[in-house]
Amino acid sequence: MPLWNIQTPIGAYTADQKKAFAKDITAAYTETVGIPAFYVVVNFREVPEEDFLVGGEPVGNFIRIFVDHVARQLETAELRAWASEEFEKALVPHVKDRGFDWEWHVDETPMDLWRTQGLVPPPAFSDAEKLWAKENRPIPYDVAAS
Amino acid sequence: MPLWNIQTPIGAYTADQKKAFAKDITAAYTETVGIPAFYVVVNFREVPEEDFLVGGEPVGNFIRIFVDHVARQLETAELRAWASEEFEKALVPHVKDRGFDWEWHVDETPMDLWRTQGLVPPPAFSDAEKLWAKENRPIPYDVAAS
Amino acid sequence: MPLWNIQTPIGAYTADQKKAFAKDITAAYTETVGIPAFYVVVNFREVPEEDFLVGGEPVGNFIRIFVDHVARQLETAELRAWASEEFEKALVPHVKDRGFDWEWHVDETPMDLWRTQGLVPPPAFSDAEKLWAKENRPIPYDVAAS
Repeated sequence: MPLWNIQTPIGAYTADQKKAFAKDITAAYTETVGIPAFYVVVNFREVPEEDFLVGGEPVGNFIRIFVDHVARQLETAELRAWASEEFEKALVPHVKDRGFDWEWHVDETPMDLWRTQGLVPPPAFSDAEKLWAKENRPIPYDVAAS
Repeated sequence: MPLWNIQTPIGAYTADQKKAFAKDITAAYTETVGIPAFYVVVNFREVPEEDFLVGGEPVGNFIRIFVDHVARQLETAELRAWASEEFEKALVPHVKDRGFDWEWHVDETPMDLWRTQGLVPPPAFSDAEKLWAKENRPIPYDVAAS
Repeated sequence: MPLWNIQTPIGAYTADQKKAFAKDITAAYTETVGIPAFYVVVNFREVPEEDFLVGGEPVGNFIRIFVDHVARQLETAELRAWASEEFEKALVPHVKDRGFDWEWHVDETPMDLWRTQGLVPPPAFSDAEKLWAKENRPIPYDVAAS
């Protein structure tokens, strides 16, 4: 978590551009809410024009992103607006500035139906989470004490 | 929003058939709840038989659709039943009548974690939304007044 | 429902290994909550390394799974913990024991926005559902009486 699924036209980005895109998305989380970088997973899928339709018409210039959030629930309208602004800031250089149309939405899914590397991830802002963030890997911890 | 993800066998549809399919899905929204046509995004993915398993067995004749709704929440059981009927009507010519098995489900995601072309989409049934629908494109508007 | 979307590196599994994986996932449901086997749909997607990024870095050894649940809502923390354990048990031989890193999460979606083969699936644990499970196919039934 979060899982960013990014649907693009074929060849929209080079491998280096994908990496830069994913780094900016990752930073939008790590530099604000401090989750471990390895929580941020980005999946690109290059979609042939005939498979990518908007309003019933094939499109060749559209980036459609759907995201699942798990580790952080955005509980107020203010937090949601703030997060949306952060996401837009991360997106602009990779979509708008490259001349693409774009749309995104985020879903929030239950925190207790999520595991990474077989472990229950530590609570938000816990010492264990801070350690995971610092080491950037999942580390077994005392779930009962966290 | 809505985002229709349609998983099909390899070669299940021609480009023209995909377009006709996406047009019927689009109409199921624009002709009932009046959202802008460009809100309706359809992504096809052709899945090799070995990657598409039902009950643990590879299948070559199955259409599996998962949908995310954002712009309209279906708040009553009656609305949900009605919408489901509309979707089935749109699907029948493209799945049942072509001899495919099929299954679909819809998730509803938070309206305030969604942006298109960098804009907060206007409220349901607002004048701004009607303008977006008429022009079939996102147009900056006065968010505070809407 | 459930729909398991499994993102893997290219060539992570043979067709036989995918089938064994999907069979174990299917059994995690059919042998515990008794849903029909055909409810369990598994979609694999082999993702090129440049399209699969964790913390902004391309990865070649990671299995990322996202699941939508429809037919059963896990209503208590105990049920969620129990289900998570069942999923881990099903996953271990296919991910951990093969040396992959892995992460999964589950979303729960509305039961009344779901149809299979044009039918409203029968209520959990109903006689109609038991018949669907026994025959492993959707069978028209008296919705009003169920």
